[in-house]
Amino acid sequence: MDQTSPFLVGLVGTGVTPSLTPALHMAEARSLGIDYVYRTIDLTELGLAPDQLPDILAWARRLGFDALNVTHPCKRLVVEYLDRIDPLAHALGSVNTVLFTEDGLAGYNTDTTGFETAFRTGLPGAAVDDVTLLGAGGAGSAVADALLRVGTRHLTVVDIDAERAEELADDLARRHGVEVGHATTDELPSLLASASGLVHCTPTGMKEHPGTPFAPELLRREMWVADIVYRPLDTALLRAARDAGCATLDGGRMAVHQAVDAFRLITGHEPDPARMTRHFHDLVAPDHVPA
Amino acid sequence: MDQTSPFLVGLVGTGVTPSLTPALHMAEARSLGIDYVYRTIDLTELGLAPDQLPDILAWARRLGFDALNVTHPCKRLVVEYLDRIDPLAHALGSVNTVLFTEDGLAGYNTDTTGFETAFRTGLPGAAVDDVTLLGAGGAGSAVADALLRVGTRHLTVVDIDAERAEELADDLARRHGVEVGHATTDELPSLLASASGLVHCTPTGMKEHPGTPFAPELLRREMWVADIVYRPLDTALLRAARDAGCATLDGGRMAVHQAVDAFRLITGHEPDPARMTRHFHDLVAPDHVPA
Repeated sequence: MDQTSPFLVGLVGTGVTPSLTPALHMAEARSLGIDYVYRTIDLTELGLAPDQLPDILAWARRLGFDALNVTHPCKRLVVEYLDRIDPLAHALGSVNTVLFTEDGLAGYNTDTTGFETAFRTGLPGAAVDDVTLLGAGGAGSAVADALLRVGTRHLTVVDIDAERAEELADDLARRHGVEVGHATTDELPSLLASASGLVHCTPTGMKEHPGTPFAPELLRREMWVADIVYRPLDTALLRAARDAGCATLDGGRMAVHQAVDAFRLITGHEPDPARMTRHFHDLVAPDHVPA
Repeated sequence: MDQTSPFLVGLVGTGVTPSLTPALHMAEARSLGIDYVYRTIDLTELGLAPDQLPDILAWARRLGFDALNVTHPCKRLVVEYLDRIDPLAHALGSVNTVLFTEDGLAGYNTDTTGFETAFRTGLPGAAVDDVTLLGAGGAGSAVADALLRVGTRHLTVVDIDAERAEELADDLARRHGVEVGHATTDELPSLLASASGLVHCTPTGMKEHPGTPFAPELLRREMWVADIVYRPLDTALLRAARDAGCATLDGGRMAVHQAVDAFRLITGHEPDPARMTRHFHDLVAPDHVPA
């Protein structure tokens, strides 16, 4: 008998039933010979409200869960129920991985570490003099912290909502001790005329929101383009960027690395990022039929 | 990737943390290539009261459990929360296996089916003209039903508590349409003087309750002796019975077959009873160190 502990993990959020994360974690565990069950806890399907998060946490612990991944709309809500929080997650005010430990609940954010690794490995040596971040929501916030950690000199936060862009820029400036610009989408033409690169953090390009988030003519071959949308993996934005001659980074790499980092935290075992990437690509292939 | 559904199962009851059932189920699942996590939900350790069973059931379902095994003190309590109940479990009024199905909660009792199989396979051809059942609690009740199903002609229920013995005997007589005797332990000498066999269903012989449940001199080589205690597997009663020349059936066989039957119900896969028996013997071996 293998003596490795079996692991029990869940994903809490609205509409999480179609998530690829459970399959991704379980396939890697199986490759490592670890018993691992990963369940979706879909607030929408269960008719649970986000304010029932304390009950969800308490019962998940009682019923033997080792950890929960947490997504919209619970990433900020969960923070107040933790006993310990990782400094990167604390700075962001957002947690996507909760471990049930003997010392209580510990929170981490592998969105921000996942994007950081994705960027370092997917666009090695990319210029970060002047980066435009489009989308000031939760994902944008996690990506912005990563961009500043990898050395971005001038970051501009862009959102359709001027106030939201300004709030995130001010928060980043205060926490990182740097100047961070903010703008609305109207200003993209002038920003992209000189940007080293762009990270796209809005839902545009997802199956439910097809299209590009701005006119593709604004792309220049000298810039790199990163998308965090990964369903589909090859978005209209990335196709336009390739057509324009830009280096690109798809959203799959962040999705895989947030899972790699979460898997490592949960199990204490080192996952194989290349194997998880191959499996991720199988899962998002258009002809994939979920098990 | 294996396309078999992963399974998530729990065991609810007081003091269930040391149970061997999780290891037994998970080892068999692993042999069959099935991802399977089995957790103990120990009411004692969690500080939960049996009247919180409805919450436990609701949350286990929400958090993605496929099934629960249920033990003391919840086997009767759980019945009222089921949507469907197997006829054998309904007759007993006791459930040890709850499946979360698309049509609601379905209850079964694999203690009674487990003892039946244990008896048929462990004491094949044993005479059942006159059987003495010692212990009229929940386990005794499940065993009594099995004894009547395998054709026991005259069953006598014996308990230190005369009222409890009479209640079970009356219940069995009513449900099975046969006469069932009852007696107190004082009457064991006369009962065992003519019994074809004895089933022992009290805690005596467990590590915490060492010894034999009655004077071993009452055993006769013509009778068989079955014990349902399995920790230790070789009880003082079984040793005395072997010394007296009796055929014997240890409690491990019932423990294994209740798990075999539960595993089959939960997964829809056919477990290998011989393999589960070997694994059970490994687990109860005196030198076994739990994983």
